[in-house]
Amino acid sequence: MHAIWLENRELSLRDVERPSPPPGESLLRVTLAGICATDLELTRGYYPYAGILGHEFVAIVEEGPEDLVGRRVVGEINAVCRTCDACRAGRSSHCERRTVLGIVGRNGAFAEYCTLPSSNLHVVPDSVPDEVAVFTEPLAAALRIGEQVAIGADDRVLVLGHGRLGQLVARVLSERTKHLRVAGHDTGKRAQLDALGIATSSPADLGDTRFDVVVECTGHAAGFDLARRHVRPGGTLVMKSTYAGSLEIDASALVVDEIRLVGSRCGPFAPALDRLASGVVDPMPLIHARFPLADGLEAFAEAARPGVLKVLLEIGAR
Amino acid sequence: MHAIWLENRELSLRDVERPSPPPGESLLRVTLAGICATDLELTRGYYPYAGILGHEFVAIVEEGPEDLVGRRVVGEINAVCRTCDACRAGRSSHCERRTVLGIVGRNGAFAEYCTLPSSNLHVVPDSVPDEVAVFTEPLAAALRIGEQVAIGADDRVLVLGHGRLGQLVARVLSERTKHLRVAGHDTGKRAQLDALGIATSSPADLGDTRFDVVVECTGHAAGFDLARRHVRPGGTLVMKSTYAGSLEIDASALVVDEIRLVGSRCGPFAPALDRLASGVVDPMPLIHARFPLADGLEAFAEAARPGVLKVLLEIGAR
Repeated sequence: MHAIWLENRELSLRDVERPSPPPGESLLRVTLAGICATDLELTRGYYPYAGILGHEFVAIVEEGPEDLVGRRVVGEINAVCRTCDACRAGRSSHCERRTVLGIVGRNGAFAEYCTLPSSNLHVVPDSVPDEVAVFTEPLAAALRIGEQVAIGADDRVLVLGHGRLGQLVARVLSERTKHLRVAGHDTGKRAQLDALGIATSSPADLGDTRFDVVVECTGHAAGFDLARRHVRPGGTLVMKSTYAGSLEIDASALVVDEIRLVGSRCGPFAPALDRLASGVVDPMPLIHARFPLADGLEAFAEAARPGVLKVLLEIGAR
Repeated sequence: MHAIWLENRELSLRDVERPSPPPGESLLRVTLAGICATDLELTRGYYPYAGILGHEFVAIVEEGPEDLVGRRVVGEINAVCRTCDACRAGRSSHCERRTVLGIVGRNGAFAEYCTLPSSNLHVVPDSVPDEVAVFTEPLAAALRIGEQVAIGADDRVLVLGHGRLGQLVARVLSERTKHLRVAGHDTGKRAQLDALGIATSSPADLGDTRFDVVVECTGHAAGFDLARRHVRPGGTLVMKSTYAGSLEIDASALVVDEIRLVGSRCGPFAPALDRLASGVVDPMPLIHARFPLADGLEAFAEAARPGVLKVLLEIGAR
């Protein structure tokens, strides 16, 4: 089968063997997949992964439990052991022996087929088209913030970055607070948010305004310093971006200002699918381009261009 | 009056004018004061303060409200405006216009007299001797952790560092969890904790054990890396140390492991005084030496020696 392979920071289109699902896993025929900032960071060496990339996908179950075969699904990306301390404590997304689809030790979804534990799969309602359902994983990641940080209607919340992730985070947090602002440089992307009634501004126009909660979605280290400047003493800075490289922080200032930094990763699929099915979150305006899998390298090049939103890979027929 | 003065990172014993309390403040005749790691870091340039040092003290009220004159008091160190956004939101320790005794824009307590807002003062019960009451401020800082982080009896908690602050943090957290461990190099200090039934070990002996909550009290940047290694994914790292210099952190690892970093500073005086009065916390074993104010520079030199616990300055008669 065709697949987009990463090795030594080099992408290639390869012919690889179609996987066979081990016990407990399903064979998935991928129809549509999305390129995420993490995929791009992996190509920059953020984590030493070698294999097929891709963790945002929609697929048809080809082999697996009877009630799933033939169904259209999305899938949680952490394949977990259910026996380690983290799993038994109910924190299976931090399973000590986990593999992660297209990220850690498990071939991903930028291929005609992939496998995942059947218990990771969520059936997509018929009313939700592939190009909407493919946003389930990043939307779940956006919803994760609300599981970690109590955000009330009166809390002043700043989302830094209006890219792939920031756009979804903004949509999700606009449900929670009346005082949401999204900061970014691109007037077109700000207009998309303005159209939803979400206040936006350029980072420079924030002045010295401080917020109760700042969510860093810029995808680069400079975003942290900006976020830090705009979180009030005693406030919370949610870190969503993963990128290669380290960060220099003033530890004493964090102590004196009693800042909470909260790392935030994968989130709940069911409420994400609910929001997509009900139309509460409409991701369609976030689609920038679609490429067939055969043009996967061009798709990556396009996704890596500054300011580009979601690039989709059309892999198989629905 | 005599005072210990800091300017351009240089300490001196000076004769300075006795302060006059402005409206709302009391004149305090200091009897006993304690040297804290923050004082030492200020001499190393952690914050560009110039003036009289000292924020841990016991004093007699010489001028002030009738019900306080002649009483023995300790005092909260943040003098706040009560009108800024932070104050009105109930977060007055983060007052935007605050001065901080001996730290920010306000002469401190290593002097025969100092002043503080009368509302900052807490009367010391007669049964509590000066050398116990002088620990109210650092004990309050230790209690702050419990206000910020929910710690249950089954949570595995690691305190890194068994110095001035770590010793108090350990005593306070031993009230909350059955699974407390304190790590540090000094066998004598570990023995002090062992005697209280608190488990201790050398940092090396921690192996790869992970904890739900790690409290960093080492006072230097290397402590952060050690703390980070021992906090479990999804766990909390409480930062108590303030020191000059910055920290290099792997931001992506914080995101992937969903770590919470919590900066923690000043805490509640009333419960601290309660614990000292009831004997639940006995700080007497933490006193390393006492010096008269006239030997203040020697006292600082002694306090700066590695491994030294609390050095007290005897300033006036009780």
